[in-house]
Amino acid sequence: MLSTILPSQNNHHPSSSLESLTASLTDSKKHLLLAASGSVATIKLPVIINLLSSTQNLSIRILLTSSASQFLNGCTAEQPTVSSLLSLPNVDAVYRDQDEWGPQPWVRGRGVLHIELRRWADILVVAPLSANTLAKVVGGHSDNLLTSVIRAWDTDGGIDGKKKVILVAPAMNSAMWRHPITAKQVKTLENDWGVKKGEDGVVTGWFEVIRPISKTLACGDTGGAMASAETISEIIKQRLELN
Amino acid sequence: MLSTILPSQNNHHPSSSLESLTASLTDSKKHLLLAASGSVATIKLPVIINLLSSTQNLSIRILLTSSASQFLNGCTAEQPTVSSLLSLPNVDAVYRDQDEWGPQPWVRGRGVLHIELRRWADILVVAPLSANTLAKVVGGHSDNLLTSVIRAWDTDGGIDGKKKVILVAPAMNSAMWRHPITAKQVKTLENDWGVKKGEDGVVTGWFEVIRPISKTLACGDTGGAMASAETISEIIKQRLELN
Amino acid sequence: MLSTILPSQNNHHPSSSLESLTASLTDSKKHLLLAASGSVATIKLPVIINLLSSTQNLSIRILLTSSASQFLNGCTAEQPTVSSLLSLPNVDAVYRDQDEWGPQPWVRGRGVLHIELRRWADILVVAPLSANTLAKVVGGHSDNLLTSVIRAWDTDGGIDGKKKVILVAPAMNSAMWRHPITAKQVKTLENDWGVKKGEDGVVTGWFEVIRPISKTLACGDTGGAMASAETISEIIKQRLELN
Ligand SMILES: Cc1cc2nc3c(=O)[nH]c(=O)nc-3n(C[C@H](O)[C@H](O)[C@H](O)COP(=O)(O)O)c2cc1C
Ligand SMILES: Cc1cc2nc3c(=O)[nH]c(=O)nc-3n(C[C@H](O)[C@H](O)[C@H](O)COP(=O)(O)O)c2cc1C
Ligand SMILES: Cc1cc2nc3c(=O)[nH]c(=O)nc-3n(C[C@H](O)[C@H](O)[C@H](O)COP(=O)(O)O)c2cc1C
Repeated sequence: MLSTILPSQNNHHPSSSLESLTASLTDSKKHLLLAASGSVATIKLPVIINLLSSTQNLSIRILLTSSASQFLNGCTAEQPTVSSLLSLPNVDAVYRDQDEWGPQPWVRGRGVLHIELRRWADILVVAPLSANTLAKVVGGHSDNLLTSVIRAWDTDGGIDGKKKVILVAPAMNSAMWRHPITAKQVKTLENDWGVKKGEDGVVTGWFEVIRPISKTLACGDTGGAMASAETISEIIKQRLELN
Repeated sequence: MLSTILPSQNNHHPSSSLESLTASLTDSKKHLLLAASGSVATIKLPVIINLLSSTQNLSIRILLTSSASQFLNGCTAEQPTVSSLLSLPNVDAVYRDQDEWGPQPWVRGRGVLHIELRRWADILVVAPLSANTLAKVVGGHSDNLLTSVIRAWDTDGGIDGKKKVILVAPAMNSAMWRHPITAKQVKTLENDWGVKKGEDGVVTGWFEVIRPISKTLACGDTGGAMASAETISEIIKQRLELN
Repeated sequence: MLSTILPSQNNHHPSSSLESLTASLTDSKKHLLLAASGSVATIKLPVIINLLSSTQNLSIRILLTSSASQFLNGCTAEQPTVSSLLSLPNVDAVYRDQDEWGPQPWVRGRGVLHIELRRWADILVVAPLSANTLAKVVGGHSDNLLTSVIRAWDTDGGIDGKKKVILVAPAMNSAMWRHPITAKQVKTLENDWGVKKGEDGVVTGWFEVIRPISKTLACGDTGGAMASAETISEIIKQRLELN
């Protein structure tokens, strides 16, 4: 039942345990919670992580939806296994849905993983964001670990004492991207919940959308492809003030 | 495959069978369908039930989402097992998702559990109502037994000949509660679908929300905690005119 | 793991493989993608198919949600097994959710089933359309094969070079049908996304709703019953210009 992927060097105190998570709250590193949902662009995760390898004082925890894990099947060099992600620079844990409820059954007093992950994170980056997870986020659903973290986000910093951002990079087939519901839902993230500076200088909102690039795909269609790993890693560096 | 939890005294005619449910439609008791979705407050279910123990002529059937069952794991005294709920006063059956499709495969003419449960219930109480189930209800989803009962509610009494209410008690982490989507979705339940008396004296709507209390939680946050078991059981008594 | 249902005569080149699907893109037949979601009316699928049996040059591929399959359990003559659907006239394959991700793990370059199915289809017919799938479609969810095809529909023909329609036939219990959310969601399909000819003669939209009939059901309730197999098959013939 112990399904969390643990770095082998950490057998005594698994880095993905709630204890380790809580302990690292105060480790003075920058905390990047890096998530992927079920798009082919999930295979860019290692690329993004490698582009951040030279940064100092960074701790990365990875969060995968069940569909995202399907792309990390070890079939080719660009599709490493889920557990091999732990050997990438700065990666301290990989979480999947089963970690929310286990390995031990819940008893009162025990922390709640999606809440602790939100506390821990200085930023949450969802790259790629699938059409399906987009719909769930906008609709307020929280039926897996990723959407529970997002639903429990401290949207104005009123709880954790610090306003923190969720960065999403949609990635989908051109037809999915061109479907009218996409624009409507992205608008909710950008306009209603998006980071904005008001006339009074006050910053509101907690979402930032890194829009797909309009490169022409193999099939001749345009639009929907995830922004490049370079773009995404650069924005992460800026937001976390890494160097 | 027989997954319904059966009271041991009822082996010949399991109280959770469709036959038993249909038979009890006319048993002249008040029928409380008491449901829980995946919040920690699920452990208040036995407390609510015990507070109703002195009432006469009450039959309680319990309905759990898959996440709610996780909290009833027998680990501590306040977390009894799912099957032990059957020994609580007035409890006649406990339903879970697998009961909708089994134990026998469906054939035409056989009743449909979520429809029969709606017919049986004089009131449906969802305590706790999770953020996720709130989203599904407002969005019209019906992908499990609880949300199917809610989606098939006879909203104006035009079908069962009697207007019946769904009482919900949201319970969630403070950040989940403060998220702007919560207010929007609760507003749908209260304003659009809420029980209201019009100027003409006609009562419309079928939802009643028992709002969370603003007690300060352990973490120092305020808001989101489920109303007390006392409050909830009192409202149930009033609505069912129990004594 | 090979879960797709294969016609026995096609062992060398399973008709439900991606290769076969892609090959048949140019077979000069009319392509009907016929789907069912979890309503009892799923048992009308064979009836609809038989009513189309005399048509020339028709290829039918069937797509079932997990709930829809529950009704095809071989218990009675009107409930044949899923695999027996393959022996019906013009049926070339039956797809279920597990086909999206298998039998081989995904590698780059391999086609994506829900995209290929959309390309292949001259029309998608969802009969019956359940309340739950209606909610998911309107909300933009794509958590199974059917809703992924719908989410990836080429809504204006801008990608596949041909404007194609999704025909849906809702079927639900009277109370589900009378619930106010039904009208709201059907309105989205009919008004916002529905096929319409503008004043300039230009046709927009891609959804067509075949409304339930108001026959009185066994329980005395009215409304929600799926349009007859005759009506549905006639509309299919017209839209596909079959004879
Ligand atoms: C091979 C393959 C590739 C897919 N690529 C995408 C994609 O790029 N974007 C997307 O939104 N969905 C894509 N999907 C569909 C999603 O995986 C599907 O909607 C899934 O339910 C998403 O789950 P999640 O949002 O929980 O991760 C793909 C599916 C398959 C089988
Ligand atoms: C230990 C634990 C406690 C949770 N407490 C709550 C809660 O109080 N309220 C809530 O809305 N979700 C809570 N969740 C998250 C839900 O269980 C999760 O969103 C789940 O998908 C809800 O499923 P359901 O709505 O079908 O019951 C908790 C999760 C865990 C693991
Ligand atoms: C026996 C039985 C009959 C059902 N009939 C219907 C129906 O006619 N219409 C409907 O919307 N849901 C019906 N449901 C409920 C759906 O099957 C349920 O909401 C399911 O989650 C739908 O899944 P899908 O939309 O993915 O197919 C029925 C359920 C059962 C057990």
